[in-house]
Amino acid sequence: MTDSPDAPRTLQVALGERSYPIHIGPGLLGDSRWLAPYLAGRQVMIVTNEVVAPLYLEGVRRGLPEGLEVRELVLPDGEATKTLESVSRIWDALLEAGFNRRCTLVALGGGVIGDMVGFAAACYQRGVAFVQVPTTLLAQVDSSVGGKTGVNHPRGKNMIGAFWQPRAVLIDTDTLATLPPRELSAGLAEVIKYGLIRDADFLAWLEAEMDALRGLDAAALTRAIERSCALKAEIVAEDETEQGVRALLNLGHTFGHAIEAHQGYGKWLHGEAVGVGMLMAAELSQRLGWLTEAEVARVRAILEAAALPLAVPADMAVDDFLAIMRLDKKNLDSRLRLILLRALGDACVHDETPVETLTALLAEFPRR
Amino acid sequence: MTDSPDAPRTLQVALGERSYPIHIGPGLLGDSRWLAPYLAGRQVMIVTNEVVAPLYLEGVRRGLPEGLEVRELVLPDGEATKTLESVSRIWDALLEAGFNRRCTLVALGGGVIGDMVGFAAACYQRGVAFVQVPTTLLAQVDSSVGGKTGVNHPRGKNMIGAFWQPRAVLIDTDTLATLPPRELSAGLAEVIKYGLIRDADFLAWLEAEMDALRGLDAAALTRAIERSCALKAEIVAEDETEQGVRALLNLGHTFGHAIEAHQGYGKWLHGEAVGVGMLMAAELSQRLGWLTEAEVARVRAILEAAALPLAVPADMAVDDFLAIMRLDKKNLDSRLRLILLRALGDACVHDETPVETLTALLAEFPRR
Repeated sequence: MTDSPDAPRTLQVALGERSYPIHIGPGLLGDSRWLAPYLAGRQVMIVTNEVVAPLYLEGVRRGLPEGLEVRELVLPDGEATKTLESVSRIWDALLEAGFNRRCTLVALGGGVIGDMVGFAAACYQRGVAFVQVPTTLLAQVDSSVGGKTGVNHPRGKNMIGAFWQPRAVLIDTDTLATLPPRELSAGLAEVIKYGLIRDADFLAWLEAEMDALRGLDAAALTRAIERSCALKAEIVAEDETEQGVRALLNLGHTFGHAIEAHQGYGKWLHGEAVGVGMLMAAELSQRLGWLTEAEVARVRAILEAAALPLAVPADMAVDDFLAIMRLDKKNLDSRLRLILLRALGDACVHDETPVETLTALLAEFPRR
Repeated sequence: MTDSPDAPRTLQVALGERSYPIHIGPGLLGDSRWLAPYLAGRQVMIVTNEVVAPLYLEGVRRGLPEGLEVRELVLPDGEATKTLESVSRIWDALLEAGFNRRCTLVALGGGVIGDMVGFAAACYQRGVAFVQVPTTLLAQVDSSVGGKTGVNHPRGKNMIGAFWQPRAVLIDTDTLATLPPRELSAGLAEVIKYGLIRDADFLAWLEAEMDALRGLDAAALTRAIERSCALKAEIVAEDETEQGVRALLNLGHTFGHAIEAHQGYGKWLHGEAVGVGMLMAAELSQRLGWLTEAEVARVRAILEAAALPLAVPADMAVDDFLAIMRLDKKNLDSRLRLILLRALGDACVHDETPVETLTALLAEFPRR
């Protein structure tokens, strides 16, 4: 690999014997150098959805060496399909094909596909290999790194799942050309999150480059994805199973999950809900005396520049938030635990927010 | 703990940060010293079945400290219930109860309950604590050690599952008093297996003590369970995820699975099928020139002394065996891999058995 701006970049996620590489750059699909080294045996199943299949399934197939036993499974699209039933369909297909423990699953799609295929791989014959090929910005910077897999339950998001690491993650930045603008913005919310929780310089760089990113400038996207994955990989390497520092990755998520759960999963994009949730966390941090008004204004401005919503749904009352937030699985033993900002670039876990401060924020935050 | 013959014995399964103890002896249930140290938090769900609940649920409840949030779930009995649907019922109950990541599941019952509850724990909120309280000899010496969890699929046994270690295993030998004799024999098959694969002295001890074991002599049972668990724990510590030596634990299982699958799961007990499968493996080892006729006669005699079947179902033709064995997940890449005996107490993985030798064995083995 050279240092030319378009050359793929490789990051290593350090997890001992479960370590794996993330390759990032244009033109990775269809080039067998990137996928072939990570296949466990001769049996390969590519799992994707109805939206992604016509765009990229042929490319992935072209990137596989000759002489393999290749199957394809195309699932419906959307968060509503992230269920145990869909994962069962993957298991049924694997068993029908007679796939053994040396098979490899390829997850081609966004976060929903990645989470489901990862979970299917984690539990098929007690664990088989899988490779992530994320095609949305959100999946590229978030769900493809860290080994969280799973499905939703009618009573809560991601309630059933496993920690299971991929053999590799292949991020072809060309796939972002077909991403709807709303989904690009949702992905940018998670990119901004990394700056907010851990890297003030990256946050400043994002403020400067937001137009280039929204304009799909390849070099800017590669750098933003690489830095996001590196920050997440650092955190995951420190805390693979979320006992400590990994909780910081949930900045904006407790508020965001409340919006998603109240509105019905799939109506707000996950990144949109997290985006406004981060603004709520910033405003709460200001009410606790940690951020200045000017710093909160910077958060609001970068979210606005990324075309993310800055207000919560008009039909969500204070009690709607509180009722759902108390059930959130991040709140151990029913204590209200929030991720807040000590400063821009410095997040913390805080479980002593006075309930009146929280209630005042929820009451006064803009509706739309 | 003292050295009195009735004092509980403790073994450690060495798996780094996933290490856990196995406590073995009479009177463990109902005594809070044994369960309380392994609870992750205040929320505890005891999962058992309709047969075990009236016998031991009250005892486990009594063995829990005051002030906990305790729920109970009683599932139907039997291998036919070892399905993803049953595990979903556990997840539903956990979510309905609002149980968080610090909850603990207690698996009270035989291997089916242990496998399902372990799998439920492995995937609830990506992994929660569980304690095994096995009440059958088979579960005590086999499925409670090693972290294999999972459920059956219409296309195969244990096809969906995870490796997930318990916090502790509590083996109360008093529970064997209520075990039907057929199930005691099935458990003894697995005990004999440990002698055959790895410990000729233990095999000789079992030959001498078989009457005491079948008569439920407490000291003999404790010693047999302890040695079996120690042998399995050694093997699992060497090879947690079954890449190598752990395969030896499958002595008799390829033939046994074929019988179970052909007859319909639940008709033959797993231990019964494994017992006759071990005799088949011994006879095949003789045909390969590894065991003498006298050694095979010893295998036959100890199985007979344990009241285990010595013949396969009359309606199973050679082709029935071959068709099912080729699908067995232990046969990687469709190669026929068998666990055979180089000597009594010395098993090996062998994938070069001539098909005519195998076919002759299958044709000539006694039917009943």
